[in-house]
Amino acid sequence: MINIAVAQSGGPTCAINASLAGVFIEAKKHEEIDKIYGARNGIQGILHDNLVDLSQVLKNDSDVELLIRTPSAALGSCRFKLPKVEDDHTAYDKIIQTFERYSIKAFFYIGGNDSMDTVAKLSKYVISKGKDIKIVGIPKTIDNDVMATDHTPGFGSAAKYIATSMLEIIRDLGAYYLESVTVIEIMGRDAGWLTASSGILKVNGEVAPHLIYLPEVPFNIEQFVDDIREVQKTHKSVVVAVSEGLKLASGKYVGSGVLTDIVDAFGHQQLSGLAKYLEHIVKKEIGCKFRAIELNVLQRCASHLASKTDLDESKLIGGKAVEAALNGVTGEMMIFVRTSNSPYTIEIKSAQIDLVANNENIFPKNWINENGNGITDEAIEYFLPLIQGEVTPVIKNGIPVHIIL
Amino acid sequence: MINIAVAQSGGPTCAINASLAGVFIEAKKHEEIDKIYGARNGIQGILHDNLVDLSQVLKNDSDVELLIRTPSAALGSCRFKLPKVEDDHTAYDKIIQTFERYSIKAFFYIGGNDSMDTVAKLSKYVISKGKDIKIVGIPKTIDNDVMATDHTPGFGSAAKYIATSMLEIIRDLGAYYLESVTVIEIMGRDAGWLTASSGILKVNGEVAPHLIYLPEVPFNIEQFVDDIREVQKTHKSVVVAVSEGLKLASGKYVGSGVLTDIVDAFGHQQLSGLAKYLEHIVKKEIGCKFRAIELNVLQRCASHLASKTDLDESKLIGGKAVEAALNGVTGEMMIFVRTSNSPYTIEIKSAQIDLVANNENIFPKNWINENGNGITDEAIEYFLPLIQGEVTPVIKNGIPVHIIL
Repeated sequence: MINIAVAQSGGPTCAINASLAGVFIEAKKHEEIDKIYGARNGIQGILHDNLVDLSQVLKNDSDVELLIRTPSAALGSCRFKLPKVEDDHTAYDKIIQTFERYSIKAFFYIGGNDSMDTVAKLSKYVISKGKDIKIVGIPKTIDNDVMATDHTPGFGSAAKYIATSMLEIIRDLGAYYLESVTVIEIMGRDAGWLTASSGILKVNGEVAPHLIYLPEVPFNIEQFVDDIREVQKTHKSVVVAVSEGLKLASGKYVGSGVLTDIVDAFGHQQLSGLAKYLEHIVKKEIGCKFRAIELNVLQRCASHLASKTDLDESKLIGGKAVEAALNGVTGEMMIFVRTSNSPYTIEIKSAQIDLVANNENIFPKNWINENGNGITDEAIEYFLPLIQGEVTPVIKNGIPVHIIL
Repeated sequence: MINIAVAQSGGPTCAINASLAGVFIEAKKHEEIDKIYGARNGIQGILHDNLVDLSQVLKNDSDVELLIRTPSAALGSCRFKLPKVEDDHTAYDKIIQTFERYSIKAFFYIGGNDSMDTVAKLSKYVISKGKDIKIVGIPKTIDNDVMATDHTPGFGSAAKYIATSMLEIIRDLGAYYLESVTVIEIMGRDAGWLTASSGILKVNGEVAPHLIYLPEVPFNIEQFVDDIREVQKTHKSVVVAVSEGLKLASGKYVGSGVLTDIVDAFGHQQLSGLAKYLEHIVKKEIGCKFRAIELNVLQRCASHLASKTDLDESKLIGGKAVEAALNGVTGEMMIFVRTSNSPYTIEIKSAQIDLVANNENIFPKNWINENGNGITDEAIEYFLPLIQGEVTPVIKNGIPVHIIL
């Protein structure tokens, strides 16, 4: 009999708890596994001996179902990076001590790029110490920027939220008949996957968003103004999707600390953020109504709009991680391999963690249109299967119910 | 045989199309009604002869069902106020000419307080000219600030969106174990109904939002800081719901043009908005992490989260308006009368438009707690029935489908 542990790390998503549930469900099936520990606040829970016996808090199937429908990291998250082992191996030793104290023979870390750095470092250290403890990564991030996997758990739900919200905002804008530019700011500092996914609406006959700007394309202000003028020839209300991570050719974030011509009541020039900066440009160059809408943290936590495909796959990949560890896999991250797009089918495999850690999967250049202001049909075909299916929240008093571990 | 016309005005909601559907469905039942016209962009559609024969665009039951599930104003909206008739009656005469040209004997105006001003002025003018044209108002606004009615169509769906989103944001915040203050800014310039509705979460055992500030209570900065310190004694992550319309005792909007101590890279003091201003206070007085989240226009257009009760009632009140006009009612607005809270029952009646127009129904003082930073259980009892029931969107390719008229 062995014990195992699982932890969650990095920014919350709608699907990270589905992967946790997947680990739990699969582990319960194996007689050789006794206790399934959850570490609170990621690897810090291992470091500080803050573990919970998951069977004590997930008492029945409906608890597990509720966990799958609960957004954010039910075990708590962290943003903790292990130091280089050659600089300081205190934390590594402490982690191994906890593993040994609890007879933990496999550890599953659900997280994004930074968390995979932990998997890489820790798995190597464990091997170097001759310990038989499997360390397996389970990907997670709304940003879809993890290498080696076709897509990441959490991305599909975020994309579904963005497409749906964008559509509803477009309807809202349609109520008034006046010339306007609306900029919708979407998460993604370096990878434009989420912003690009707003282009999905085209498949249902929507024309907006008319323009999509990604961090992968250096932002050009003159081109931006020209693009808007071009759209205005046929559409009064111009809808623009922009990534929060838009950068100028210099590599500087658009609007970051840029002084504008906007002067406050005291004659001081105003510093701008992205939206303020674009507002300034539109008002100066185009001279029409401007509105900026920031799709806030709901992009990553609106589980009432989760993609069923995303939650199903996230559960599945968690389960496959348990199987992999039992089969001897360590120092690897579980990945999705898309075997067919129509019908959509995937396989779940694992990849060497060094292919993944400290790397970033950006949006492909060949899926961006020639003008750098939209996406190709191939990109839409890639996105579509990931947002399919709805998940009905458990409702009490008209409001979704979540589980708190 | 008579013809009728209907139009939509003011800010979009999730329910304004359900009222339009209600008018259409009821009118179709009456043999004495021939054509049902929709005026585009509110009363401006009547003024500029921009009418659509609704039977031509709503061809079957599924079109009507789609209309009910479509957010925003499908006929387009406007923000147009009729001048005082004694100043200029040109527009009034033009409106009557259109009515007569199309044999329109009843006009239904779905809108908020400003639209009811149009109903009041127009109905009086029509009577003064001895014309037999019924003018009936159908209330609509997410702000719930219309007099005479227990609540307004559109409010319940917005409240359900706010409660659900707030809950998901609370889960998101729960992932990290660090001291923080999160301010969630909610619509409502003068009436705090929507912000107050975030207090509903208590009924499902949630503690957050810990503090709720409404425009009905003059905002006191020292009190705000003390309130946060008090919550921090028991909760690391403090969640605060604030109305966009928070005002100081002077009546000035909080943060409107207030100079802060925030100095930019060039030594210039920064002007703040509400969130920026509160951030400034929290950072200076409390010194912890601060985050501001603005629940944007999705509050009024997220129909994927609509309240079934709201859509059902909105349809019903549209239908009742047709009945009322056929029974000779004019110069009145349809209203909800709550006849019982448990079980929740309503009656639909009509009220003299002068009781409604140019008036504003603010959140009751006796539903605000003693400290002015939360709501009472009585308020929760009022809110709860309005957010009950879910409406399944029609989905195509993983995205909701709407109708465009």
